[in-house]
Amino acid sequence: MKSISLPKEMKALVFQAKGKIEIVKKPVPQVGPNDLLIKVTTTTICGTDIHIKKGEYPVVPGLTIGHESVGTVAAYGDNVTGFELGERVLAGAITPSGFIAACQYGQGSQDGVGEVYGYKATAGWKFGNIEDGCQAEYVLVKNAMANVAKIPATLTDKQVLMCPDILSTGIKGSENADIVLGDTVVLVAQGPIGLSATIGAKLLGASTIIAVDGEEARLEMAKKYGATHTINFKNKDVVEEVRRITNGRMADAAVECLGLNSTFQTCLRVLRPGGKLSSIGVYSEDLVIPLDSFAAGLGDHQIKTSLCPGGSERMRRLMQLIENGMIDTTKLVTHEYDFDKIVEAYELFESRKDGVLKIAVKVS
Amino acid sequence: MKSISLPKEMKALVFQAKGKIEIVKKPVPQVGPNDLLIKVTTTTICGTDIHIKKGEYPVVPGLTIGHESVGTVAAYGDNVTGFELGERVLAGAITPSGFIAACQYGQGSQDGVGEVYGYKATAGWKFGNIEDGCQAEYVLVKNAMANVAKIPATLTDKQVLMCPDILSTGIKGSENADIVLGDTVVLVAQGPIGLSATIGAKLLGASTIIAVDGEEARLEMAKKYGATHTINFKNKDVVEEVRRITNGRMADAAVECLGLNSTFQTCLRVLRPGGKLSSIGVYSEDLVIPLDSFAAGLGDHQIKTSLCPGGSERMRRLMQLIENGMIDTTKLVTHEYDFDKIVEAYELFESRKDGVLKIAVKVS
Amino acid sequence: MKSISLPKEMKALVFQAKGKIEIVKKPVPQVGPNDLLIKVTTTTICGTDIHIKKGEYPVVPGLTIGHESVGTVAAYGDNVTGFELGERVLAGAITPSGFIAACQYGQGSQDGVGEVYGYKATAGWKFGNIEDGCQAEYVLVKNAMANVAKIPATLTDKQVLMCPDILSTGIKGSENADIVLGDTVVLVAQGPIGLSATIGAKLLGASTIIAVDGEEARLEMAKKYGATHTINFKNKDVVEEVRRITNGRMADAAVECLGLNSTFQTCLRVLRPGGKLSSIGVYSEDLVIPLDSFAAGLGDHQIKTSLCPGGSERMRRLMQLIENGMIDTTKLVTHEYDFDKIVEAYELFESRKDGVLKIAVKVS
Amino acid sequence: MKSISLPKEMKALVFQAKGKIEIVKKPVPQVGPNDLLIKVTTTTICGTDIHIKKGEYPVVPGLTIGHESVGTVAAYGDNVTGFELGERVLAGAITPSGFIAACQYGQGSQDGVGEVYGYKATAGWKFGNIEDGCQAEYVLVKNAMANVAKIPATLTDKQVLMCPDILSTGIKGSENADIVLGDTVVLVAQGPIGLSATIGAKLLGASTIIAVDGEEARLEMAKKYGATHTINFKNKDVVEEVRRITNGRMADAAVECLGLNSTFQTCLRVLRPGGKLSSIGVYSEDLVIPLDSFAAGLGDHQIKTSLCPGGSERMRRLMQLIENGMIDTTKLVTHEYDFDKIVEAYELFESRKDGVLKIAVKVS
Repeated sequence: MKSISLPKEMKALVFQAKGKIEIVKKPVPQVGPNDLLIKVTTTTICGTDIHIKKGEYPVVPGLTIGHESVGTVAAYGDNVTGFELGERVLAGAITPSGFIAACQYGQGSQDGVGEVYGYKATAGWKFGNIEDGCQAEYVLVKNAMANVAKIPATLTDKQVLMCPDILSTGIKGSENADIVLGDTVVLVAQGPIGLSATIGAKLLGASTIIAVDGEEARLEMAKKYGATHTINFKNKDVVEEVRRITNGRMADAAVECLGLNSTFQTCLRVLRPGGKLSSIGVYSEDLVIPLDSFAAGLGDHQIKTSLCPGGSERMRRLMQLIENGMIDTTKLVTHEYDFDKIVEAYELFESRKDGVLKIAVKVS
Repeated sequence: MKSISLPKEMKALVFQAKGKIEIVKKPVPQVGPNDLLIKVTTTTICGTDIHIKKGEYPVVPGLTIGHESVGTVAAYGDNVTGFELGERVLAGAITPSGFIAACQYGQGSQDGVGEVYGYKATAGWKFGNIEDGCQAEYVLVKNAMANVAKIPATLTDKQVLMCPDILSTGIKGSENADIVLGDTVVLVAQGPIGLSATIGAKLLGASTIIAVDGEEARLEMAKKYGATHTINFKNKDVVEEVRRITNGRMADAAVECLGLNSTFQTCLRVLRPGGKLSSIGVYSEDLVIPLDSFAAGLGDHQIKTSLCPGGSERMRRLMQLIENGMIDTTKLVTHEYDFDKIVEAYELFESRKDGVLKIAVKVS
Repeated sequence: MKSISLPKEMKALVFQAKGKIEIVKKPVPQVGPNDLLIKVTTTTICGTDIHIKKGEYPVVPGLTIGHESVGTVAAYGDNVTGFELGERVLAGAITPSGFIAACQYGQGSQDGVGEVYGYKATAGWKFGNIEDGCQAEYVLVKNAMANVAKIPATLTDKQVLMCPDILSTGIKGSENADIVLGDTVVLVAQGPIGLSATIGAKLLGASTIIAVDGEEARLEMAKKYGATHTINFKNKDVVEEVRRITNGRMADAAVECLGLNSTFQTCLRVLRPGGKLSSIGVYSEDLVIPLDSFAAGLGDHQIKTSLCPGGSERMRRLMQLIENGMIDTTKLVTHEYDFDKIVEAYELFESRKDGVLKIAVKVS
Repeated sequence: MKSISLPKEMKALVFQAKGKIEIVKKPVPQVGPNDLLIKVTTTTICGTDIHIKKGEYPVVPGLTIGHESVGTVAAYGDNVTGFELGERVLAGAITPSGFIAACQYGQGSQDGVGEVYGYKATAGWKFGNIEDGCQAEYVLVKNAMANVAKIPATLTDKQVLMCPDILSTGIKGSENADIVLGDTVVLVAQGPIGLSATIGAKLLGASTIIAVDGEEARLEMAKKYGATHTINFKNKDVVEEVRRITNGRMADAAVECLGLNSTFQTCLRVLRPGGKLSSIGVYSEDLVIPLDSFAAGLGDHQIKTSLCPGGSERMRRLMQLIENGMIDTTKLVTHEYDFDKIVEAYELFESRKDGVLKIAVKVS
């Protein structure tokens, strides 16, 4: 094991009870032979973290939360090669082991398909879910060789801060739409993840990119990220607007970026026969597929869902797209806080006030 | 136009009113430059025809019904080449035009994505739906070059009678499951279409093929067609049986072959995280996706539906599989009737008595 | 049949003998029930036309040459619907029938896989190859429903003139590279087709786009179309430059855009193990795959070739990408000539002088 | 670390010099935290081993050779879970790390695409290539979690002995042919790997399976494994026979299973336009693509190569296909030897006498 000089204790934000999160002192994690310890420089807050705070998504009290961070190498085990102490790195929100059947067959996010993690969906998501997370001074990355990616010297923390989760998730939303060159794609909801999906649609060959939201500011942002058309669902019938824009052809693909039954159904209804629905929202209710929206099962429809893709190679690719100017997510980072004020940052994020999209939390 | 000597009139089975079908006299169809007229030798009855008879699926009164037939070339137009009068041919139940956008992009069954057919799902299905069908002495195939396939001399009508619809549909069910070599596939409902899906799973590289039904006779038939395991849902909990058979891994794919909410949900529940659901049932109710069966949208699930693939090349390929011994659907043809008794044949088929699976109706 | 008032004769550029092309008078084509006649407003000259002129690619003397045109509807047959006389349209250089097996299975450019066209590669290419072409006052499009696409009112002839061939071909070059988000793609040769491939790589999610050519002006153009790096093979070792740019990883994909053994081999040598080679060049010599460049057949390499994709839906999609600002090929049109001077235009194009890339030839 | 009682030394077959292999004593390998030690019960000899023996494929003198084995768990490290001492297991010939970029993006056999193994093709192949191999009493499997698979209790060593290499390789040959249901596939050369490819073509939905070889005995075996037609190239012109069998359509796909320029060219020449060539042969010369066989680059051809796929999930799937009766490779095991006579077994295998296909070498 190699290591910089490490303190015994560190500050970490933990879930204590429904509605209660706080910064506590914890021991700095032990580093095993396959692990790498990141000294966190910047972290951020995700919508899922809010669900966790509220107790809507259950985690063990005392768990360090957060799954997005940027930092430097503080220590690594004997089986970890190719890194140097102090160099800038990050890991995805999802950290596949690399060795489970799901990983071997291209579905690393579903790392739980095997005996090790118990055949459980989403078991690839460990940080702040089943292991200590990223909103802390240090975070331990297991199976480091499969997960830790170097940050190009030219990129700032702010430029890469969206890679671990929302950029990877949002773009996967458009990847799962199986866009064929020239497709018309409708993206429903334009929060940070929806905007990332819009970035993805632009990157993947869509010709007509229709962004849907209820906030004009978000629709304006969508245009900056590549939307060719926008629909404010508060003023317009989304299905009829799509019909008008496409001269009756309707959309080839739709991406659900929120997690409601109603937005899911909107996605179904804007599709042409043979259309593709990609869902990246996190639902908290049963979904209903209206018979007519589905051509009674005879419409050659396709629905795909996904969890955020992780792994070091995914992260390297996203950062390379940023470095070469194809993606710029800095516009999504609307606020900055010091780690000691992270509880306040949660409150702002939860309130959706002040035009907040994403918050950079500076740790060191 | 070339033609054998044709009568002026022919017998045809038409939908008259809810619950009423009867054989009537109709003019033999006119043959346009792109058309081919088939003299029907054998036809059959589909579950969809029963829905039409009952008025559950609306068609225009007076329409000749039926979408499956085998016959010989009676006439063809000036733009049709490569055929000879009297040679044995068939056409798929679905007859894509070949020229609509959907056809150009690989979704011929959704022929309605364009101005010609009105952007309507399932518009590729014309016989007995929006045009006169196959339960008649003659049937007109439009866009003949894209749809009429020659029958190998070695094959009988009975051997190829399932090609136009249920074999093509059932196999598509397994094709849409995107089977990867060695996948475990669960096929829910083992009527003629489900059995065809089982044939497909065997043909496409599944290692474990689990057939589910409530009738032992159908499960026995499933074993003959390749099922490695069967589950009678009347005796067993399907999800738990799949768990047991797979040592907890659950299924990689499931094929819904009936068209009920409950069977659709069973398919969802037998899947592993990252699993694939292919649906070929025709539904008559809204579908509900229970939240837990869907990992809240985070399970990397995939759902695909389809209408029967048609077109002459699809038909040629199915017949070649039959000719080379990969497929034998004659076991599905349990009864034979003369065309004059087709109304009785409908009654038997509807009753599901006497072990009926499919009925060969001899026309000439 | 509907028609505007048509003259009996028209001017057409024909191949007469090796090295000799000239404008002659020909009858305006007869319009059959599935045909549409285009009154050509603008046409252009392709590298293949030069091969034809030189006699390197054999066509029948007297054939009207050219396969790219933009125009208006002059007449159409009884089976052709959805068009109005006088409206602006174009057809792809390749005009698949829509009904041959290859069309039904997604390879319309290989329309010759069947009895009608004789099982011949490239039989989808008819204009100026096996039927009268586009460098004329009128051009007949057979199987019009599958091939004629309307031009959006907002777009000029110049904006859409590259759609029929080089834009479709070049982008297919990048599509066939099976680009995965974030791939590094090397594009070898940056003439009009190579530049179109560069446009494609940018559209399809490449992160690092490395354009290779021997002319600085073309490399400058490549940068405008999305190249992140350029290599002038006259000054640099291409393989070593790719190694340097990629920090030793080498390219995920390479696109051959010229048609020489040497450029084909360069493409092989810049690939990483598991890399993908897409070839759109037209070769005139046997190709040699050096053993070491191919890891003795153990490198998980992939090589794909293609002919230009045609069909009305392909054309519609390309035009929609142009209309929505994703593509602008007007920079490729460097010169303009009147049709009466088309023989001179050929000479300029052949000479590669005066920075010529593509020439717009105004017909009416 | 857990371990059975282990000796200090073991017998191992090593490459000593060009033409010289011999059994020597070596220390039993040390077991690290991610490793699993297999006590070999049965091993076998591969064509590649003959190349190594002859010095045609270079390995370090003293290296234990062989890459195929079946055995029991003798020891495993602290990070290895889910196994018990003494249980029956095997590992693929190729042992991907699971964590390199290539592994994360679905190309584990090309494990060398990254800094750890030096960006080298075939770096996923470690046994008997860059690390000690399987023709020994014990073999060490690194990255054991990604590579060691349990053997179902119902299967004998002989039944699973082909899984590590030739079955996985041969089937990959047919997987890489991207077989679409009903395809006509030509398999050139029917040694053990070619026969495995034939098994694959049958498993993956081919309708017409044409096996080509010069030995009647192998062609007879091909028929048992699913070939619908055979061609002895000594008596017939392969291209013309394929034309005859397919009524002029030619093959949709061809699989090269030997590694010669001539067989590679035969594969190209039997393809229809738009056809797919999958190559699994190991070449020792430059390959030449004749211009006419390639339609000058305009034929929409596809060529794919591959190295044997490994990993524990691949092995599990192959064994499940065997357990469920879809595959039986025991007919390929024509001879049996004790490990002490393995040098003689090499001689027999090299001589191709006595109808030898594969030899089971019993170790313990």
